[in-house]
Amino acid sequence: MAAPDAVTDLLGALAYGELSAFDHLADDAGLAPSLAGRAEMSALAAEEFGHYRQLAERLRELGAQPEDAMAPFVAALETYHSLTKPSTWLESVVKAYVGYGLAADFYREVAAFVDDDTGALIKDVLTDAGRAEFAVREVAAAVAQQPSIAGRLALWARRLVGEAISQTQHVLADRDSLMLLLVEGTGDLTGVAALITRITDRHAGRMTALGLHS
Amino acid sequence: MAAPDAVTDLLGALAYGELSAFDHLADDAGLAPSLAGRAEMSALAAEEFGHYRQLAERLRELGAQPEDAMAPFVAALETYHSLTKPSTWLESVVKAYVGYGLAADFYREVAAFVDDDTGALIKDVLTDAGRAEFAVREVAAAVAQQPSIAGRLALWARRLVGEAISQTQHVLADRDSLMLLLVEGTGDLTGVAALITRITDRHAGRMTALGLHS
Repeated sequence: MAAPDAVTDLLGALAYGELSAFDHLADDAGLAPSLAGRAEMSALAAEEFGHYRQLAERLRELGAQPEDAMAPFVAALETYHSLTKPSTWLESVVKAYVGYGLAADFYREVAAFVDDDTGALIKDVLTDAGRAEFAVREVAAAVAQQPSIAGRLALWARRLVGEAISQTQHVLADRDSLMLLLVEGTGDLTGVAALITRITDRHAGRMTALGLHS
Repeated sequence: MAAPDAVTDLLGALAYGELSAFDHLADDAGLAPSLAGRAEMSALAAEEFGHYRQLAERLRELGAQPEDAMAPFVAALETYHSLTKPSTWLESVVKAYVGYGLAADFYREVAAFVDDDTGALIKDVLTDAGRAEFAVREVAAAVAQQPSIAGRLALWARRLVGEAISQTQHVLADRDSLMLLLVEGTGDLTGVAALITRITDRHAGRMTALGLHS
């Protein structure tokens, strides 16, 4: 069973992930070429906020202040977002799908290592909710019109992956409780490697769905 | 009974009001001095998005595309927001309460002039939802610490009122259907004057609640 501070850390990291995703998706909605696209990206943001609220509620049930639980993860997540600030609508769409998908896969894996209630909540807040259809539609339409952007977007996705891995490593190096949770949960380094392989495979699936090389 | 195009215009204006409020509140949340304040302002933003969704749904039921219905009101609302961009957290809190309150009072008055279903929806999406307590708490705490800011915030509120009136006049001058709805609904110019008095009184009540001179 995971130590209580590992659960608080995990929920805190995820809660700040949702709160910062809300913030940045709401911002990125301004890049939309149409009111309809803007409304769709804003809907993703609003949904993240709903998830944040559920996670904050769970933290309070466990006797933790959400602000305190989130504080250790603010720097890493804001660094990720500042290094992956989309400069076009399509970059923001790819980030909303690929970046979020990566993070969701990671949290879903770790959710298996905590108590059932917390695990169920984490899986519940990580629903995809139409994000895939939205991203595939926007990217496919754009690539059909201008095939040359596929290469640029594939590079962009690689940057998202690189920065996500880099910040995850920073967080794990800094929070022993999370590192222990991951290593004990997977069993050993072979287990960690298998987890990374599963996450990488799912990432490749999303890139294929977008029609981009991973 | 209001003409169908007046109803579409009214719902379109309100829908874009909610979508732009979402956008600007999410932005203003970044001014919060704490994660708790940021989460509270973000919650207001997410709530506005929920309202936008209800209004867009109603527009679709009436056979209108939300994007088309909103388009005529984008310029006026964005002008309002660009002229009232908060530069401090307290300015954003006062705007969220006073600016939103003014707009809500106006729409609530006009809701009396349209069909019952539309009117009920409009009243439903304009709930205050804890905004007053939030704003009063933040502003009262700040004024208690530093009484001199009360005067600056009162001036700021006057600017919000001035810009809101100015943009409302632009919209009414531009959209005959809404002007007719207002004049026919209130009966005559005396009725319009009475409506303005009611809105002004409620505004004064909010300023008193904040401990500011109106």
